[in-house]
Amino acid sequence: MAEAKITRRSEDYSRWYTDVIAAAELADYAPVKGCMIIRPNGYAIWEKMQQALDAMFKETGHQNAYFPLFIPESFLKKEAEHVEGFAPEVAVVTHAGGQKLEEPLIVRPTSETIIWNTYKNWIQSYRDLPLLLNQWCNVVRWEMRTRMFLRTTEFLWQEGHTAHATYEDAEEEALRMLGVYRCFAEEFMAIPVIEGLKTEREKFAGADHTYCIESLMGDGKALQAGTSHHLGQNFAKAFEVTFQTQQGTREFVYATSWGLTTRMIGAMIMVHGDDNGIVIPPRLATTQVAIVPIFRKPEEGARVMEAVNKFTVPFKAAGIGFKVDTRENYSPGWKFNDWEKRGVPLRIEVGPKDLEKNQVMLARRDNGQKTAVSQDGLTPAISAMLEDIQKSLFERAREFREKHSHRVDDYKKFVEILDGEGGFLWCHWCGSGECEEQIKNETKATVRCIPMHAEAEVGKCLKCGGKSERRVIFARAY
Amino acid sequence: MAEAKITRRSEDYSRWYTDVIAAAELADYAPVKGCMIIRPNGYAIWEKMQQALDAMFKETGHQNAYFPLFIPESFLKKEAEHVEGFAPEVAVVTHAGGQKLEEPLIVRPTSETIIWNTYKNWIQSYRDLPLLLNQWCNVVRWEMRTRMFLRTTEFLWQEGHTAHATYEDAEEEALRMLGVYRCFAEEFMAIPVIEGLKTEREKFAGADHTYCIESLMGDGKALQAGTSHHLGQNFAKAFEVTFQTQQGTREFVYATSWGLTTRMIGAMIMVHGDDNGIVIPPRLATTQVAIVPIFRKPEEGARVMEAVNKFTVPFKAAGIGFKVDTRENYSPGWKFNDWEKRGVPLRIEVGPKDLEKNQVMLARRDNGQKTAVSQDGLTPAISAMLEDIQKSLFERAREFREKHSHRVDDYKKFVEILDGEGGFLWCHWCGSGECEEQIKNETKATVRCIPMHAEAEVGKCLKCGGKSERRVIFARAY
Repeated sequence: MAEAKITRRSEDYSRWYTDVIAAAELADYAPVKGCMIIRPNGYAIWEKMQQALDAMFKETGHQNAYFPLFIPESFLKKEAEHVEGFAPEVAVVTHAGGQKLEEPLIVRPTSETIIWNTYKNWIQSYRDLPLLLNQWCNVVRWEMRTRMFLRTTEFLWQEGHTAHATYEDAEEEALRMLGVYRCFAEEFMAIPVIEGLKTEREKFAGADHTYCIESLMGDGKALQAGTSHHLGQNFAKAFEVTFQTQQGTREFVYATSWGLTTRMIGAMIMVHGDDNGIVIPPRLATTQVAIVPIFRKPEEGARVMEAVNKFTVPFKAAGIGFKVDTRENYSPGWKFNDWEKRGVPLRIEVGPKDLEKNQVMLARRDNGQKTAVSQDGLTPAISAMLEDIQKSLFERAREFREKHSHRVDDYKKFVEILDGEGGFLWCHWCGSGECEEQIKNETKATVRCIPMHAEAEVGKCLKCGGKSERRVIFARAY
Repeated sequence: MAEAKITRRSEDYSRWYTDVIAAAELADYAPVKGCMIIRPNGYAIWEKMQQALDAMFKETGHQNAYFPLFIPESFLKKEAEHVEGFAPEVAVVTHAGGQKLEEPLIVRPTSETIIWNTYKNWIQSYRDLPLLLNQWCNVVRWEMRTRMFLRTTEFLWQEGHTAHATYEDAEEEALRMLGVYRCFAEEFMAIPVIEGLKTEREKFAGADHTYCIESLMGDGKALQAGTSHHLGQNFAKAFEVTFQTQQGTREFVYATSWGLTTRMIGAMIMVHGDDNGIVIPPRLATTQVAIVPIFRKPEEGARVMEAVNKFTVPFKAAGIGFKVDTRENYSPGWKFNDWEKRGVPLRIEVGPKDLEKNQVMLARRDNGQKTAVSQDGLTPAISAMLEDIQKSLFERAREFREKHSHRVDDYKKFVEILDGEGGFLWCHWCGSGECEEQIKNETKATVRCIPMHAEAEVGKCLKCGGKSERRVIFARAY
């Protein structure tokens, strides 16, 4: 095993990011351009994310299904904005079974088209609505610049696709799922997010409007963490999906779609990671506690292991995921470092001197604090500490975001902050696509969202001085 | 909702099969040839299968990972047998991001090549072994004749890929996973299987040898339910994966791979289904119990619902999945039929007369039996009955298989049975590919497996009269 050196975060954030991924063995480069291999340590985080989200989807009345990977090329063309948005980045199957296909097949970049082509057969009457489905799958978008987790040619995600009788029902659903994403991001990933509306330029190709949750990374750049689209009747019209109302008339169906992807693992790394590696929030960690027995002589080792075997008995029932590090030929110090770079939230150190005092040492990954804790009542103490780490990670990230949130009314200052520490820049904007585009071209900053829970405030557009009714969030983004 | 008529099984087995899938809303045809849409009712069964298998994989020390969907065409060609087996049925991406690719990409039909190309980087020393990974994903094989679940162009599966230091370790793993599959098939799917070895002609393209579990369908045809391959050093040699032994020498790594797919849902349908539709084994049913309240007047309805709400309270804690069918405008009879065709294992009928006697009626899906059971102690009674249904389904399938298993030594008789009821035909075979092929060409029957737990018995080859040391199983197969 070669020691993977981690570049300091302050030195080169981008290299730090790839270094911590390598050090934690989360992912590896694939032989196909822009694709990645998700290694067991990375996939275990995704499994925890799936479990949490899937339970929330089911609690809100959704069922899982599975639609085909391949989409006939003609389908993509049925919704004008949609094809414009996705056509440039699709992968195309032209041959199969040794023959050229009559119609090329698109490898799904997202599944609205094939799903709405199917909904046409499933939806006849208001009784068939709402239809609330989700699928977990892989999608492919041919990206020019890729980065592990954040932007890969193939990625894993879930995509919800729902059908409703009215605009209001669809709106309620889009907002409900945005709320689910917020709750998931904050309570499981410990990533504070701001709920907002995307601008016309930034909305999903084919949506009436798009909601999103936006988060701030450790380098002051923003990351879109999840999106929920109100699709209006756009796809219903493209695929002729109508239903008979209770009054006997026929109407087009309203739609939503919403997705969250493996890029959130990239967000987790950038929000919580430090110079020692990644930090996994306890609720996403399969191994929440790593136990390192410390001893020199075999007799000592036997006594330490006896204690370990005893005090870990109640862990399983308490839902604490743990591993005892019995690897030989590695020093305790090496092991401490190894578990740190893997981001395990809590470490137990226990040696002969601890046994004398009937204690163990608990070392927190998030802040490095070490505490001596009695072996009696150890299980509840650990559960409480894991809870505290979960909350502390969130709190620290929230404080970081607040510290890097600025109300800016001056364009020079705006550029200055962007070129400096970055962050969320709350600015007035007239709402025009021209100003938005000019700002983007000049500064690489985009409107991340029009925050939903911000107060109205009259002001002047940062760019043109035109009238503005509220501040929006600008940032450079991943 | 149009009433889906189910063709009688005895009338047309093939139409019965597609009818019951439609009636239970398990799957739907996709607009892409040979692909299917797995509807929520079908996907819920797959989720239960995944949970059970995944837990068994983890208990046996495996971790999940994710490897790319796309495989460079050149990779497939590195293992001679492998490319010969798979090249004719792959789908090929030739264009992406608006450009022609330099090297075409294969949509994975199975992942040995891309995984072993990766293992090259992960395996250096004996300390890195064994490497025990699994992935849940979609794969694509361009099939000419497709049938829902049984043979589809795209299907879902898990594929385990392990690396070992010695032939013996790999052999142990291949057999361990075969055992996991047997246990899963029998204990969860209630499908009795026979463990055996595939012949050289029927083994996996690239394997040293292939183990399988074989099951018998209701129409007397066989179905391969899972395979576990000992890959020898074939892929290690193709991708140059060597490791340093404890003695300091370098050796090629030994490999296994093993897979189980959504076709098992097809097996479940064909083994347990009847003229009323599918029958889901309780351990794979999300809705294990459907409760149909029976009443005419609203006052009666209120009293019945009060009782239902009371006696279902302990269900959740007991792990009983249930639904109360409160749909209006449908008669109880219609609802009974509806739950039957969906294969829900147990139905509770409860009306005013039952309330008078403090009882409910339990109707079993597997045999149609109705039993009056007291509302006191209902929960344990249901749990016990679900257990009994699970066992009965297995027992019934085992009896069916025994009844359709024949020791045959006469070729005429062999053909006669195949053309009649079909079944597992235990016959002597000399072991030559020529006899195997001749029999296949003449009768469409193949050697399903060389059973592992059958007694040695000297005899004469069914075809050529040559020497045989044991009987093997012939059958026509899906």
